Amino acid sequence: MCHDAPSGNNVEGLTFEDVNVGDEYVTAVRSISAAEMNRFAAEFDPQPIHLDAEAARHGFFGEIVGSGWHAAVLTMRLMVDARPFGGTPFIGVRVDGMRFKKPFRPGDEIQVKAKVTGKRDARSPTHGYLAMHVTTHLGDGSILMMQDWLILLPRPAENPPASKA
Amino acid sequence: MCHDAPSGNNVEGLTFEDVNVGDEYVTAVRSISAAEMNRFAAEFDPQPIHLDAEAARHGFFGEIVGSGWHAAVLTMRLMVDARPFGGTPFIGVRVDGMRFKKPFRPGDEIQVKAKVTGKRDARSPTHGYLAMHVTTHLGDGSILMMQDWLILLPRPAENPPASKA
Repeated sequence: MCHDAPSGNNVEGLTFEDVNVGDEYVTAVRSISAAEMNRFAAEFDPQPIHLDAEAARHGFFGEIVGSGWHAAVLTMRLMVDARPFGGTPFIGVRVDGMRFKKPFRPGDEIQVKAKVTGKRDARSPTHGYLAMHVTTHLGDGSILMMQDWLILLPRPAENPPASKA
Repeated sequence: MCHDAPSGNNVEGLTFEDVNVGDEYVTAVRSISAAEMNRFAAEFDPQPIHLDAEAARHGFFGEIVGSGWHAAVLTMRLMVDARPFGGTPFIGVRVDGMRFKKPFRPGDEIQVKAKVTGKRDARSPTHGYLAMHVTTHLGDGSILMMQDWLILLPRPAENPPASKA
């Protein structure tokens, strides 16, 4: 086991064997400004419900709300910054059960919690699959969105094979 | 049925009843530059495999590749621009089976295809759920990513209720 707290970018990362079902991670809290909501929506989700106050007033939410995709990528950013596996990158393989539970608005704070829910072998012997349940919370603790990630984590490098007998 | 091709932002959108299982949509093609890949990753997925050529050379893909989340939000942008339901917005409820099949690289072209795979009633009588299978293709036609969307579409506005007898 090697659960040393990582620090800095050059630290060796954790491997598949270092992580256990039930391990939990909590990210920093960050807020979302009206300007960045607008900028994201203009680039990736330019629907009037995210950009046009008058159209939004007559729409489903009755006011401008953020794009669910913005919440999704901010969730990724918070998780990357939290460095749950130290210097080891997350290679995302699959996402299921991504549910947008409520809208978010300018000034809302978000924070992400993640829990390892499963581990299984990958086809390649050099990596393993980690399943994580990831929830994104608003400042009042309520769930903004949730998702289930399947990611690929490296296994420890093997010792060099012994020379043939 | 009302399948008039929408044009302009003020056109009335399609409703749940106008859309049929089997309906297909194809978006425009767009390319992804190294600069925008870098900008997206720096903001939302700042892992060395997306930003640092030297680190990426020793990493899983052997070179810098785009963030899967970037492919996901560009997929949304292409779908929004395609206006499959005219002026009617997509209200995303749930995404499943989002699979990142291969990496993408600077200069790659992407195009999205979507097919309506199911329709069902929502709890609210004013809306219905539409299920869509959405695939994002590279320039050679291969699948970069796929996902299954559940979205909320409005039903036609009812006539005003008759005055009480």
